[in-house]
Amino acid sequence: MEFNLDETIAILSRTPASLDALLRGLPDVWVRGNEGRNRDGRSNETNDTWSPFDIVGHLIVGERTDWMPRARIILEHGEARAFDPFDRFAQAKESQGKSLDQLLDEFARLRKENLVGLQALNLQPEDFSRRGKHPELGKVTLSELLATWAVHDLTHLHQLSRVMAHQYREAVGPWSVYLGVLKCAGHSAP
Amino acid sequence: MEFNLDETIAILSRTPASLDALLRGLPDVWVRGNEGRNRDGRSNETNDTWSPFDIVGHLIVGERTDWMPRARIILEHGEARAFDPFDRFAQAKESQGKSLDQLLDEFARLRKENLVGLQALNLQPEDFSRRGKHPELGKVTLSELLATWAVHDLTHLHQLSRVMAHQYREAVGPWSVYLGVLKCAGHSAP
Repeated sequence: MEFNLDETIAILSRTPASLDALLRGLPDVWVRGNEGRNRDGRSNETNDTWSPFDIVGHLIVGERTDWMPRARIILEHGEARAFDPFDRFAQAKESQGKSLDQLLDEFARLRKENLVGLQALNLQPEDFSRRGKHPELGKVTLSELLATWAVHDLTHLHQLSRVMAHQYREAVGPWSVYLGVLKCAGHSAP
Repeated sequence: MEFNLDETIAILSRTPASLDALLRGLPDVWVRGNEGRNRDGRSNETNDTWSPFDIVGHLIVGERTDWMPRARIILEHGEARAFDPFDRFAQAKESQGKSLDQLLDEFARLRKENLVGLQALNLQPEDFSRRGKHPELGKVTLSELLATWAVHDLTHLHQLSRVMAHQYREAVGPWSVYLGVLKCAGHSAP
């Protein structure tokens, strides 16, 4: 399936409400539980895996520093200026002292603003092949960036369902053999 | 984390609205797209993998024939009567001729009715260890059944995010290496 702006926005515009319906008001055991210590050697300050709370914080950081700022760099500078690296652990600071409800509100607000900004760019078909420079991946296009924004939502929904299911790993007893999500060990790049 | 009825209902009661926010009104490319033919040798009539539309249909079948009927069998018959086997492919018939919006409405309605029914059972702590007989897994408890109901929602949210992400596998270009969901091959039991 080829990139299509409207179909991409269809995903991006739905994520905040879907996460809100899933998470708001949930008991802390689901919201604050993670998958234990990292097993893959990557580390952050605490060496912990991410809870749903951490994931929403991470999505907020993406809205602030990643997607639309990078789209603007492509349109203004092309490959002449590499994107700023994305800080995968910035949510610890971003989320400090906030409640999940505050994070959900903030994510919804930022996403809405960013989609207004995206529409205001009035992108034309020829713009989607414009190129930028990723600090690690090298040449990328605007359409790849925008498609990644949507799939990034889905990758964290995938993670979120896995983290939540993990809390009931023992509680399901013998049914665990039928529950694929309990066999997912995550698929993050090293 | 041990089984807790209120914490289980907290998940079960949120799934319909979360799926509704994610899927209602989405273009058909996302709703009807699947992951191609089955690669694992299991087959249904068409040998296709599941689309989001199919997944919502499957959740409806679960509401009708699996969770509450099995809870009632445990309470009424214990291990003396095995559960009826669950038909993993019944959604083809269940969903025929319906729109996604109809399926989302139906899932929400059935889930609500089932949670009313669950509360009406007025389960006491000692009930959760009552045993039933699964046709393949053997002895299971009521708490394992109810925990599985919630994790089953999460396993299909996990699948749904993967199926949707699959449609943009090419569109994200080099970013695919960072997007864990694109590396997930599913984890279904053989």
